Amino acid sequence: MAAADDMSFDLVFRAARSQNRWLACEVPDDVLRRLYDLMRWGPTSMNCSPARVLFLRTAGAKQRLVPALAPANVDKVVGAPVVAVIAYDTAFYERLPHLFPHRPEAGAMFERDAALREETAFRNGTLQGAYLMVAARMLGLDCGPMSGFDQAAVNREFFDGGTVKVNFLCGLGYGDPAGLFSRHPRLEFGQACTLL
Amino acid sequence: MAAADDMSFDLVFRAARSQNRWLACEVPDDVLRRLYDLMRWGPTSMNCSPARVLFLRTAGAKQRLVPALAPANVDKVVGAPVVAVIAYDTAFYERLPHLFPHRPEAGAMFERDAALREETAFRNGTLQGAYLMVAARMLGLDCGPMSGFDQAAVNREFFDGGTVKVNFLCGLGYGDPAGLFSRHPRLEFGQACTLL
Repeated sequence: MAAADDMSFDLVFRAARSQNRWLACEVPDDVLRRLYDLMRWGPTSMNCSPARVLFLRTAGAKQRLVPALAPANVDKVVGAPVVAVIAYDTAFYERLPHLFPHRPEAGAMFERDAALREETAFRNGTLQGAYLMVAARMLGLDCGPMSGFDQAAVNREFFDGGTVKVNFLCGLGYGDPAGLFSRHPRLEFGQACTLL
Repeated sequence: MAAADDMSFDLVFRAARSQNRWLACEVPDDVLRRLYDLMRWGPTSMNCSPARVLFLRTAGAKQRLVPALAPANVDKVVGAPVVAVIAYDTAFYERLPHLFPHRPEAGAMFERDAALREETAFRNGTLQGAYLMVAARMLGLDCGPMSGFDQAAVNREFFDGGTVKVNFLCGLGYGDPAGLFSRHPRLEFGQACTLL
């Protein structure tokens, strides 16, 4: 079987760090399109693909986020070349006839059941948020994910009370190593995993 | 900047497929340990690392899942060399003094606020579920994720009504290409993304 190499393990997992400060290097739109063209192939249940992403590139667009941010995240947003607002559409089921054609009636159960709809959108939209970060790192970008912000304020500002809801934010660009903290420990195998 | 190559893009995203049938090849415990040693470095908010994983390897362990499964998933579970029960611990905050030492009091807000605790555990545990699938593919394994099952029944059987709750299941092994369906379409960039 094929497997990735040590360089890829480092790039995606072992050497990658969440960034707090950013170098003044632009992220071209073409890179954002390549990023989406990778992440979209990651698995979601029934191929439901609920993630919706706003890529904030201009100072004006990033400024719209600022009133909703925890104070510690303001500089991280303003200084990032691009900030991805990673959201999910709770009306994802309307696209299932296209996305999951072999069961065209699959949307009905989500239309009927708001709790199932919300949980499915959140779970699968979050998986896709992880795919976005993995794809970004594979393309040589750094990530700076953030969940310290006022969700309701972001939803009002960007999604106008519709079916799309914010999940988390992620700065994208080239990190300044001077802004890194020392790396935190992770749980050992036996603290997180059980072999049965 | 370093970037991954086409082979890695294919392995993780472009050529990888969710598997329905499995070849009779074992997955050694050592591979599961390497898998965790990659996935654990993926980012979570405040390094909270709420994912907990049961790796079901024996026929007896997999059989314990069967009564909780949607009928379409029974063969996928029984036939998989390993089934990962990907769960999250809502008491993750008890480990924050170790995982996030520069703010030792961070756990208190999760102890106070059950909704924040549940949402944080579910979001970050799901990110880690995606890291598990990405790491598996990087190691040359195939994945078969499933969310069609009775969550309450799995929680009773494996977690005994404690603070750990199941999120989704994922078969791990080497897929039999004869079991694949044709690939479903994905949303185009403009259907899922907006440049601002």
